Amino acid sequence: MLRTCLVGLCLLVPAVQAQEVAEIPEPVRTTVQQLIERGLDDEVGYHFVRDLTTEVGPRLAGSEAEARARRWSTQKLAELGFKEVRTEDFEIPFWARQVDRARIVSPTQQNLVITALGGSTSTPVGGVEAEILRFESMAELRAASADIVSGKLVFIDEKMTRTQDGSGYGMAVRKRRNCATVTSEKGGVACLIRSVGTQARRFAHTGMMARGKAVGDGVAVALSPPDAEQITRLLTKGPVRLHLDVQVETREKAPSGNVIAEIKGRENPEEIVLIGCHLDSWDLGTGAVDDGAGCGIVVGAAHLIKSLGTAPRRTIRVVLYGSEEVGLLGGRYYAQRHADNLDNHVFAAESDFGAGKIWRFQTRFGEGALPYARAIQQVLAPLGISPGNNQAFGGPDISMLPRSGVPVVTPRQNGWDYFDLHHTPDDTFDKIDHDDFNQNVAAYATFTYLAAEMGWDFRKTVN
Amino acid sequence: MLRTCLVGLCLLVPAVQAQEVAEIPEPVRTTVQQLIERGLDDEVGYHFVRDLTTEVGPRLAGSEAEARARRWSTQKLAELGFKEVRTEDFEIPFWARQVDRARIVSPTQQNLVITALGGSTSTPVGGVEAEILRFESMAELRAASADIVSGKLVFIDEKMTRTQDGSGYGMAVRKRRNCATVTSEKGGVACLIRSVGTQARRFAHTGMMARGKAVGDGVAVALSPPDAEQITRLLTKGPVRLHLDVQVETREKAPSGNVIAEIKGRENPEEIVLIGCHLDSWDLGTGAVDDGAGCGIVVGAAHLIKSLGTAPRRTIRVVLYGSEEVGLLGGRYYAQRHADNLDNHVFAAESDFGAGKIWRFQTRFGEGALPYARAIQQVLAPLGISPGNNQAFGGPDISMLPRSGVPVVTPRQNGWDYFDLHHTPDDTFDKIDHDDFNQNVAAYATFTYLAAEMGWDFRKTVN
Repeated sequence: MLRTCLVGLCLLVPAVQAQEVAEIPEPVRTTVQQLIERGLDDEVGYHFVRDLTTEVGPRLAGSEAEARARRWSTQKLAELGFKEVRTEDFEIPFWARQVDRARIVSPTQQNLVITALGGSTSTPVGGVEAEILRFESMAELRAASADIVSGKLVFIDEKMTRTQDGSGYGMAVRKRRNCATVTSEKGGVACLIRSVGTQARRFAHTGMMARGKAVGDGVAVALSPPDAEQITRLLTKGPVRLHLDVQVETREKAPSGNVIAEIKGRENPEEIVLIGCHLDSWDLGTGAVDDGAGCGIVVGAAHLIKSLGTAPRRTIRVVLYGSEEVGLLGGRYYAQRHADNLDNHVFAAESDFGAGKIWRFQTRFGEGALPYARAIQQVLAPLGISPGNNQAFGGPDISMLPRSGVPVVTPRQNGWDYFDLHHTPDDTFDKIDHDDFNQNVAAYATFTYLAAEMGWDFRKTVN
Repeated sequence: MLRTCLVGLCLLVPAVQAQEVAEIPEPVRTTVQQLIERGLDDEVGYHFVRDLTTEVGPRLAGSEAEARARRWSTQKLAELGFKEVRTEDFEIPFWARQVDRARIVSPTQQNLVITALGGSTSTPVGGVEAEILRFESMAELRAASADIVSGKLVFIDEKMTRTQDGSGYGMAVRKRRNCATVTSEKGGVACLIRSVGTQARRFAHTGMMARGKAVGDGVAVALSPPDAEQITRLLTKGPVRLHLDVQVETREKAPSGNVIAEIKGRENPEEIVLIGCHLDSWDLGTGAVDDGAGCGIVVGAAHLIKSLGTAPRRTIRVVLYGSEEVGLLGGRYYAQRHADNLDNHVFAAESDFGAGKIWRFQTRFGEGALPYARAIQQVLAPLGISPGNNQAFGGPDISMLPRSGVPVVTPRQNGWDYFDLHHTPDDTFDKIDHDDFNQNVAAYATFTYLAAEMGWDFRKTVN
């Protein structure tokens, strides 16, 4: 605020900062218009996600299916004419569900729709039976004494809030991550959570509960919302007993990897503009919105730029990360393997929030580079995208890069419905809207091209 | 049409029929207003379906759960103060799913979301593997030669049309009823159908394929819509092989029954106004819209009438039919057991189409009784219900009564979303809209009361 005084009257008025906007010269501007037009009509990206989710299907981290997805992607990217197509392999601890089922055994007999959480341990073979103890929240469970939790099936009935930017997830996911640990500490038998999701249908949402290892500290499953409500209603009448059977397969080491493809820069090939997604998915659906769509978007966008005929100044690197779902393992591996070269990473973005329209473009640049942010935001405005702040986190697999000084952006997608599908059997290709998807392709092609062509220093700290 | 001639000009104009409307005298008219007002605020009916679907849950015909539902309903109806609460028991052929799973084994490995159809036979233990042969319609399968069908898994990819009155069901259900028989005749291994339903999510819809016996003529399963589309996409690339495992339990005889409760008529107790629903459900959901809602509606409506204090002239009989889903067995049994007394059934209605608002009131009365139909329709109009024709079929379990001369009505509900839930795991209590449900209670209370109080002869053939 500034203090302004006029004829003895003083007012506080906002300081009008000079909103400097970097200039984009004419030939580049025309190319960007082409990219937008072609992006809105693109088929390559859409077909990539369609065929990945159809021909490979679910792609559980460390599984044979994820390996097939790497082979499939490598071949497809080579066919599309990308250069330096390769995988960078690593190993991960492996977890897979074999059996996960639950039924109410008293006061009535009913099957429930549940899913084991990634990293759950197994129950004894044949399952366990115990009484349910319900909590409204993780906080309430934490506050409970071990005396009352011991021997019980803990049920956390916390709901998630639907938001456009997905911000309800951060809070809701805590119960998924911590419920089993706290339950085990207090002597509980297993933990059931109301699914981390926003839909009201009979789908349970899986997701990781362990951290950095194959299995966590106990048995953990998620209930579909109608099943959570059913149990809650039954509990108003008296005790409810459940039979729960979870059997999982684990291995200390399983193969995973990142798939990489490039458009080699024509002037500064050592400078890298990275756009990514993750190739693995949960096992229940076919990983369409999470995250086949993201891979289709970045591949479609890079392919459009490649189709211009002349490579941009810098190298564009497309990275399809492996094993994101089980702890950002592909992203962590990339950051470690390329640690010596992160100074050459001039810009990074990841698409991992479905295929909803982008409505806001956030950056995390040096203060001196904000005129470049504004220039990109102006070009994206006709796509219905408004400027965001300079506090972007990037995306899951690139979230560790800003620590090493890599500038990132977050093209924020409309996630209103994303957590209706996320980690459920219903995450399938038919849920992707072609027009919304292509708005993403057009936007990614635009800002990726600008980042690669303009030679801007997004790290620049002083204007 | 009438031919009207005026100054040499002849026109065809519709004949204006005298639309005679029966009179409803003042005390009855006031009572009806009370019933409508109380119906819109009722809790008894809504709690009936809530508690039935919660405390009993799924109620497969002939199962122990259906027996529990009879005991539960009998007790509840007695608690609500109904008279002559009883069951009329019969036996049915029993079918239950034990295992139903399918996975694509070539050219990729993916689990599918399927459900065995009621009456499916078992595959060999451990399942079968075969190549898929896709047909656009039942007609196309019928036209195919046995040479090409033999040894194949037949897949019928016919879609169902969404309509408000549910009329898309009749056509779509043919593939469910006939697919296995035709497949078996042509030497096919099993039949897969795209689910008979209108939703696009990852739910498969079960439903009966056999007729009047425990098992039909082969293995039959339904695929969720996204799985049907996945297979169709894969088939554009080449042959697709599936592994299918269906194991079922059957018994020649299992107990079922109808639950009956009454409000004894004060003047003509032998004359019966019947309102019904069915108590059994499929096993996947908790049978909320099909047909717990219908039972809640008729129980709620009858309870409102009972609460008036003075019984109407005729007896109101509430019938909760058993084993509707497996061939209208409760309805058929009732018609047979009460064959000698059907002349005393003066009026019948069944609620079995969910809990959507009623938008049209159809009758099937004698021509001379149409003034009574119009009188009822006028009273229902403030509830947003428009007059329908005189060709009502009644409802599934009363569909055989018109043959014996019993007058029936069909209060047609909005079924726009009904086949999104019908026979899926997602048919659960949370899907019922309380306001729409109560409009049904108010309407049923109104026309049931008028039918019981007014002493009208709905069979009347001449005016």
